[in-house]
Amino acid sequence: MRVITLLTDFGLEDGYVAAMKGVVATLAPEARLVDVTHLVPPQDIASGRFRLLTVARYFPEGTVHLAVVDPGVGTARRAVAIRSTRGAYFVGPDNGLLLGALETDPPEMVVELSEPRYWRTPTPSATFHGRDIFAPVAAHLARGVDLEQLGTTVAPDTLVRLDLGGWKTLPGGAEGTIQAVDRFGNLISSMPGSALAGHARWSASIGGRSISGHRTYGEVPLGQPLALVGSHGFIEVAVHRGDARSALRAGVGDPVHIRWE
Amino acid sequence: MRVITLLTDFGLEDGYVAAMKGVVATLAPEARLVDVTHLVPPQDIASGRFRLLTVARYFPEGTVHLAVVDPGVGTARRAVAIRSTRGAYFVGPDNGLLLGALETDPPEMVVELSEPRYWRTPTPSATFHGRDIFAPVAAHLARGVDLEQLGTTVAPDTLVRLDLGGWKTLPGGAEGTIQAVDRFGNLISSMPGSALAGHARWSASIGGRSISGHRTYGEVPLGQPLALVGSHGFIEVAVHRGDARSALRAGVGDPVHIRWE
Amino acid sequence: MRVITLLTDFGLEDGYVAAMKGVVATLAPEARLVDVTHLVPPQDIASGRFRLLTVARYFPEGTVHLAVVDPGVGTARRAVAIRSTRGAYFVGPDNGLLLGALETDPPEMVVELSEPRYWRTPTPSATFHGRDIFAPVAAHLARGVDLEQLGTTVAPDTLVRLDLGGWKTLPGGAEGTIQAVDRFGNLISSMPGSALAGHARWSASIGGRSISGHRTYGEVPLGQPLALVGSHGFIEVAVHRGDARSALRAGVGDPVHIRWE
Repeated sequence: MRVITLLTDFGLEDGYVAAMKGVVATLAPEARLVDVTHLVPPQDIASGRFRLLTVARYFPEGTVHLAVVDPGVGTARRAVAIRSTRGAYFVGPDNGLLLGALETDPPEMVVELSEPRYWRTPTPSATFHGRDIFAPVAAHLARGVDLEQLGTTVAPDTLVRLDLGGWKTLPGGAEGTIQAVDRFGNLISSMPGSALAGHARWSASIGGRSISGHRTYGEVPLGQPLALVGSHGFIEVAVHRGDARSALRAGVGDPVHIRWE
Repeated sequence: MRVITLLTDFGLEDGYVAAMKGVVATLAPEARLVDVTHLVPPQDIASGRFRLLTVARYFPEGTVHLAVVDPGVGTARRAVAIRSTRGAYFVGPDNGLLLGALETDPPEMVVELSEPRYWRTPTPSATFHGRDIFAPVAAHLARGVDLEQLGTTVAPDTLVRLDLGGWKTLPGGAEGTIQAVDRFGNLISSMPGSALAGHARWSASIGGRSISGHRTYGEVPLGQPLALVGSHGFIEVAVHRGDARSALRAGVGDPVHIRWE
Repeated sequence: MRVITLLTDFGLEDGYVAAMKGVVATLAPEARLVDVTHLVPPQDIASGRFRLLTVARYFPEGTVHLAVVDPGVGTARRAVAIRSTRGAYFVGPDNGLLLGALETDPPEMVVELSEPRYWRTPTPSATFHGRDIFAPVAAHLARGVDLEQLGTTVAPDTLVRLDLGGWKTLPGGAEGTIQAVDRFGNLISSMPGSALAGHARWSASIGGRSISGHRTYGEVPLGQPLALVGSHGFIEVAVHRGDARSALRAGVGDPVHIRWE
């Protein structure tokens, strides 16, 4: 029996998450539930995308990642389930939320959730697909239902992308994007630590400002900006005990350059 | 082995909830624990009652709902366990907290918890019955102990009610009460969506003010009040991206009328 | 299969806790995970220590308590796993965090975590030992790996202590320390209720001020200080509906005296 992770922007005060868990417990009593977070800022798809991608790799094969940050609920946005190359499942809205985790473990099969017999009800709430569509679909996957049965196969390249995860090497460096800002105001780029290609001396530039690369916060004075590889494995720009987002007036989508020194 | 849900006003910072879970894990190692919320505003029985009623229906038969919002702990208020008609169990203080969930699934048997051998200790803490009485009783129920063994049977109509769940049809409409205010300030009435009896055009009135009924928030401008059926199934009065509680100066217990247009 | 509890200062917004749970779910799929809290104030070892000690005793024998409040991560501080006399396990940094829970259930064996084959990777992140060392070690313990295999045995008396848990009887009273301040500002001493030795009339003194002992908050007017035995079993100094920390300008480590009246 599989693990089901849950990630939403529903908060912890109301019963929305518990309603989803009740639906799962009814359909897949043996599934193991693990919360990723329910404190994604409301409707912040980029933030939810990043949190999911930082954790999905640590879960066992066959885990079902159920993620609902869904400002488009009730519109024509598609509901999808995806199997990755390494055998993880992802269930949620087709709005870019799921694809961050699939950049290093690409989709093998994508299905649009069009089979109401795997939903909680054939007439789902207009505002709560988490409970009525996504949770029951995740439970059926955890029980071993084939992905193909859940709806119509669609081409992976039709999935909505946020284009926050790209990066490339350049002569003398690399180039990427701010893909997320964490709650401390750290600016997390799309470039993995491996983009440094072993260079020990490097700097990042963002908004025209150059910031030297370090191994740990302690290498710069309090209040000073620095660039480093965070524990999630990406190059980030931070301020020692400060908030890089406001200090550098930068945010999601802004370009970042790396240069060897 | 059964699911045990937990709902409290204990918060997430201290060890109170974990102490209860430790007691359950000791007595019923196989029980599956699902948090509803621990962020009920302190001692707000009406709020806890509403959150429990919105989720209980989604859990499998035999689920034990353990709920502790208990300003009267240490006084003469009764401690009870209840089996509902559909086979759910509810364990907690007899102060109205549990009864919202039992309005659509009435009590079949009610027991006052008077058998200390099902408690953690025969001399429970004066302030923490959650750990010493309610958690162990829930664990014993999850293990299959008969409800009757936990104490003395009492008549369901002696249970303390908050009288927040009533409503009735009127000529040309319906009448109910605000049963809860959610964290966004939405005023949630006691009237289910079915009270609209299929009427497409309707309005709600509260505090002398008439508010037109809609299907979704998007049908009114930002800052405008509207009435609609929420995802929990009740008619509510809201303000689009605003706070209806302060805009309308209304709260729990206030009357709400519905009129067909 | 054992229970693993988790206590950290990682918060609930990011994926750090979920990454640890994914590591556990991969290595010990049957282990039962119970959160104690993840809202320990950042790097506040004393606070984490107290929360762990208030809950550990309620969990079944063989439970693995995984606790990470670790300001010294990446420095020379030791990583340890401990088996207590009553058969509980504790895994975390050697900084005093774990020892509060071991005052009434002393260490039987202590191992420094020096065997990388029980880690997630032989090259752990410099900043996230929770994911790379402590979580996998806890999972291996839950699976039944012998404590001795995880590294080198060290003497229990070499463990770092915070010295917040001591107290002693005096002629006519007792003497201890503030070991924690809870989120309401209550000052929790190191003296268990049993230090009162059955005396019904007593007072506490802190910072030169004498505060009379009571059984419940209700025995003093709102805003008035009092001393009482809290539900965690320790003598505490509180203000009825107020904040004793600011009213009395006291904090962790301050001495407290008890005197029979």
